[in-house]
Amino acid sequence: MGVMGLSMAGQTLSEKIFSRAANKEARAGEFVMASIDCAMIHDITGPLAVRGFYEIAGKGARVWNPSRIVILFDHQVPADSIKAAENHQMLRAFAKEQGIINYDVFSGICHQVMPENGHVLPGQLIVGTDSHTCTYGALGAFATGIGSTDMASVFATGKLWFMVPQTLRLVIDGRLRRRVTSKDVILRIIGDIGADGANYLACEFAGSAVERMSIAERMTMTNMSIEMGAKAGLVEPDRVTMTYLKEWLTEEPIRGDEDAIFEEKHWDVNDLEPQVAMPHRVDNVVPVSRLPHVKIDQIFLGSCTNGRFEDLKLAAEVMGDEPVARGVRMIVIPASRKEYMRALRAGLIEKFMEAGAIVESPCCGPCMGGSFGLIGPGEVSLSTSNRNFVGRQGSPKGEVYLCSPAVAGASAITGEITDPREI
Amino acid sequence: MGVMGLSMAGQTLSEKIFSRAANKEARAGEFVMASIDCAMIHDITGPLAVRGFYEIAGKGARVWNPSRIVILFDHQVPADSIKAAENHQMLRAFAKEQGIINYDVFSGICHQVMPENGHVLPGQLIVGTDSHTCTYGALGAFATGIGSTDMASVFATGKLWFMVPQTLRLVIDGRLRRRVTSKDVILRIIGDIGADGANYLACEFAGSAVERMSIAERMTMTNMSIEMGAKAGLVEPDRVTMTYLKEWLTEEPIRGDEDAIFEEKHWDVNDLEPQVAMPHRVDNVVPVSRLPHVKIDQIFLGSCTNGRFEDLKLAAEVMGDEPVARGVRMIVIPASRKEYMRALRAGLIEKFMEAGAIVESPCCGPCMGGSFGLIGPGEVSLSTSNRNFVGRQGSPKGEVYLCSPAVAGASAITGEITDPREI
Repeated sequence: MGVMGLSMAGQTLSEKIFSRAANKEARAGEFVMASIDCAMIHDITGPLAVRGFYEIAGKGARVWNPSRIVILFDHQVPADSIKAAENHQMLRAFAKEQGIINYDVFSGICHQVMPENGHVLPGQLIVGTDSHTCTYGALGAFATGIGSTDMASVFATGKLWFMVPQTLRLVIDGRLRRRVTSKDVILRIIGDIGADGANYLACEFAGSAVERMSIAERMTMTNMSIEMGAKAGLVEPDRVTMTYLKEWLTEEPIRGDEDAIFEEKHWDVNDLEPQVAMPHRVDNVVPVSRLPHVKIDQIFLGSCTNGRFEDLKLAAEVMGDEPVARGVRMIVIPASRKEYMRALRAGLIEKFMEAGAIVESPCCGPCMGGSFGLIGPGEVSLSTSNRNFVGRQGSPKGEVYLCSPAVAGASAITGEITDPREI
Repeated sequence: MGVMGLSMAGQTLSEKIFSRAANKEARAGEFVMASIDCAMIHDITGPLAVRGFYEIAGKGARVWNPSRIVILFDHQVPADSIKAAENHQMLRAFAKEQGIINYDVFSGICHQVMPENGHVLPGQLIVGTDSHTCTYGALGAFATGIGSTDMASVFATGKLWFMVPQTLRLVIDGRLRRRVTSKDVILRIIGDIGADGANYLACEFAGSAVERMSIAERMTMTNMSIEMGAKAGLVEPDRVTMTYLKEWLTEEPIRGDEDAIFEEKHWDVNDLEPQVAMPHRVDNVVPVSRLPHVKIDQIFLGSCTNGRFEDLKLAAEVMGDEPVARGVRMIVIPASRKEYMRALRAGLIEKFMEAGAIVESPCCGPCMGGSFGLIGPGEVSLSTSNRNFVGRQGSPKGEVYLCSPAVAGASAITGEITDPREI
């Protein structure tokens, strides 16, 4: 337990964000009607939101504020069926009609494109029709996934009701060892507290280890907050945040009060090993050294969790000049066009292709087992993404292990799940 | 009409190939049982061939010669469904069990991978369970597409019956102008003689224009021989062929006799314009200058017809430093990993990505409207591939125009079908 206080106690970052958004003092546990700063839909969940909007607001209705809505396509790009193509067409027409920003198929995964284009700022309240919308909390926003029908209502009114969540502060101290990453930290945390260990909480990542992390590393952790049931994952904005956002940030970002009421849990990561979530639960987490020999059929390096330049660079560095092991299909997908171009100019695309990997243009790829990169029965996928439930990446008779880019890189050259510290 | 002769006349290249393969003098019109030099299956048509093989040859049977069979996956890679993943698994197991070469998902489109890896030599008889197997004739082989059940029989016996085809020599003289390509030549020829204009003929491409063409340019023409009904498309091996094959070629390749019996048609390409096949027939060909304004939604630069380094280079050169036009989705897919690496090292991958195109790893891609890159109703695709019938690239209410890489490049930056000579 952290600091407890009376009703005159200070506010958590989340409470402050909701206070601003609801235009009244908001405390955890209260229900508020809050103004939305930005709303995001993608190609899978978007069409239902659009149809819902016209149903509740009527034909010819205008959205509450087109400049606060972002559309993009990332789950089925390029269109993998006529139905997907039709969904894209429908969303394009909606964006055009309403004057909404549409990144279309061109920019990459929503959760990377949103922050890197200034659609996420500290202190904002952001919703998206995707469960990993919580990623944006790495910048000090309160961001959460909502259903398409809730989004229909946001499109019409710009508001949505929330119960202001309690805050769980996850204090992570220590210095990560070589080739141990923020992915290992979040996997360990989820393993420790369980897939329902943070239900409807605002998870605030803090501590010396977090302070040292880049925005990319923080995003990996906030991204997976939903995997322990959290309503949002946040990192209080600091100098790292300010530097990342220097193009867009005009004022000093808000932070939580130290005398706010929150629960607190502590981790020391000085001796943390690389971690792996075994099938078929995200909280079935073990240190990689305790895994038996697990032969891999496919490796996916990418996703909104770990598809950024730093992730690709780390995996490439671990692989060295070794080729991808015979029989292993390694699929590499940078999270966005910007991250792709960084990787390309750093020689990483050439490096991965030369090693025998398959590099695709930015999109969600095999993460959700829909568009391409599906595994067959009995096959094993090692994935830097965020979910490994039965059937997530293809056949319900396949298995998905989750890991860091370092473990992915090490395993790519050995063909079995491998400790990157031993390469 | 070309040279006519009596029964003592010389033999065409095709007759010579069938004479060797049948081990007896073979003349056009005769039925022969011929030995196959190499047999290729891919992920779509392969499974039926394998099942057929075990049906006719029995459980536990061995293929006639594993070193003369090539397997690869190109139509649904990375696997775009659980069924596709299962097909890949089944073919992998078959290749392993039989000791067959399997390029798996790694190398690219069958019709590029086969020639570039020495599986195609002049004078050989090659079959593949894909209609564009005729591509390999660019190297002076007789190569033709067969059904999966015929392939089952080839796997068992190494032989297949053929009616030796008559030869139609297409004599193409002249010098192609700047940004006019072999694709324009073959489109013009198909436009002139029709989609059934060469039914069951062996089309021999000859003449001064062909002599000047690279193997890549010749492959574009032999590739599309099937689009005029030909059984095969061939180019007599010459110095260009020898240079391309220097790694594998050990003996002087066979050529046809000048006193052989064949039909002959002539084209002069000195004044040939870039050509476009309009929806929905491959022989609905017009010079690009005579097209009305046609706005494009998607451009596909790739395929076994025009996905080689030279094609990408030409398109990039035409595009210059211009970005892809707003609203146009340009999908670029090199035909093989080798071609991809050449393109990457020449800066073309960076160039296309920088321009806003979507670059994917080597595979068939949108060509056949199955895996990804499907168009929606009312959408227009401009494609460097080989077929444009109703529904070929997605919605039956969409339209596909076929063109050269130069036209694709020009149109990419304008957003409508454009004459590359005007850029």
